Amino acid sequence: MWIGAVLAVLAASCQRPAATPSTSYDPAGKLVLPAGYRSWVYLTSGIDMSYRKDAPTRTTSVFDNVFVDPPSYARFLETGHWPEGTTLVLEQRSGADHGSIVHKGAFQNGDVIGLEVHVKDAARFPASTYPDGWGFYSFDDRQPTSAFGPKADCYDCHHDHGALDSTFAQFYPTILPVGAAKGTLSGRE
Amino acid sequence: MWIGAVLAVLAASCQRPAATPSTSYDPAGKLVLPAGYRSWVYLTSGIDMSYRKDAPTRTTSVFDNVFVDPPSYARFLETGHWPEGTTLVLEQRSGADHGSIVHKGAFQNGDVIGLEVHVKDAARFPASTYPDGWGFYSFDDRQPTSAFGPKADCYDCHHDHGALDSTFAQFYPTILPVGAAKGTLSGRE
Repeated sequence: MWIGAVLAVLAASCQRPAATPSTSYDPAGKLVLPAGYRSWVYLTSGIDMSYRKDAPTRTTSVFDNVFVDPPSYARFLETGHWPEGTTLVLEQRSGADHGSIVHKGAFQNGDVIGLEVHVKDAARFPASTYPDGWGFYSFDDRQPTSAFGPKADCYDCHHDHGALDSTFAQFYPTILPVGAAKGTLSGRE
Repeated sequence: MWIGAVLAVLAASCQRPAATPSTSYDPAGKLVLPAGYRSWVYLTSGIDMSYRKDAPTRTTSVFDNVFVDPPSYARFLETGHWPEGTTLVLEQRSGADHGSIVHKGAFQNGDVIGLEVHVKDAARFPASTYPDGWGFYSFDDRQPTSAFGPKADCYDCHHDHGALDSTFAQFYPTILPVGAAKGTLSGRE
């Protein structure tokens, strides 16, 4: 009976298709793109976001979709902190502003044109060198890739402006209130 | 040993926080808003999409985020058809075009300002009356709500223009290729 009950509970909470929630590395230490990230927990989307005032206006839209691995999200909800191992994936996907029945606005209809990954791993990225113990990766071709070195702009920008632990929680509308309730916001913006 | 192995397999595929994947109704037959939809499988986002050529230009941006219940998504990947019970949630969330370090584009930073749900349930919505056996709901206040009657515009529009079984798969970039591969696209757009 007890085993049956455990199986029933596990099965009941287990109806999501299998994802690949844990980050893995190849023998050379390069990060493997998490194959199942599209089934992870969705955090937000933006469109054509630019941090430069003189950024040229794009002629085609690019959406950013952000996902977090489910176990880290579950832990975040409990603590308001991203745990070690947290992996965020930013998918850039092309969009369009006309098509089908749409005459205004923009929608996603195209290929993935960029993939960036942010991993919290103080063993690989000691906080003495990498702000807050995170590493950044960018995939050009979905093959395993090395992290950016600590002088890349992304590290300081995330540290200096991220509303919660080097992450841009100010753009994640279901994350920011948790940080506020748990008292874990950085005060940065 | 066998039971241990089963438990291990179930636990390994079970690290996502519990969602509420099944659609439920109150005693009056009204649909209950799926509380866990933000942990469902993400399909797409759009911004300020309008089906009217004369739609006024909005002064603040509204994003649409679309989610599907995980068991139906898993079944869809196998068959290319949405199974009975499929539930799609469209969340409308306000955005902004300036803030933090963002000077161009738009991001999500606000409240949920609308929730619409699309349920495939031929028992409640017989295809003789409701195109393709789906029902539409709109939540104003997150309280249980009744479906739109079959004369509402949404039914015919989805039937006449949805690229796959009354759904706008043409805006769901991970769904459309599955439909194409499985031969289940409607040919409509």
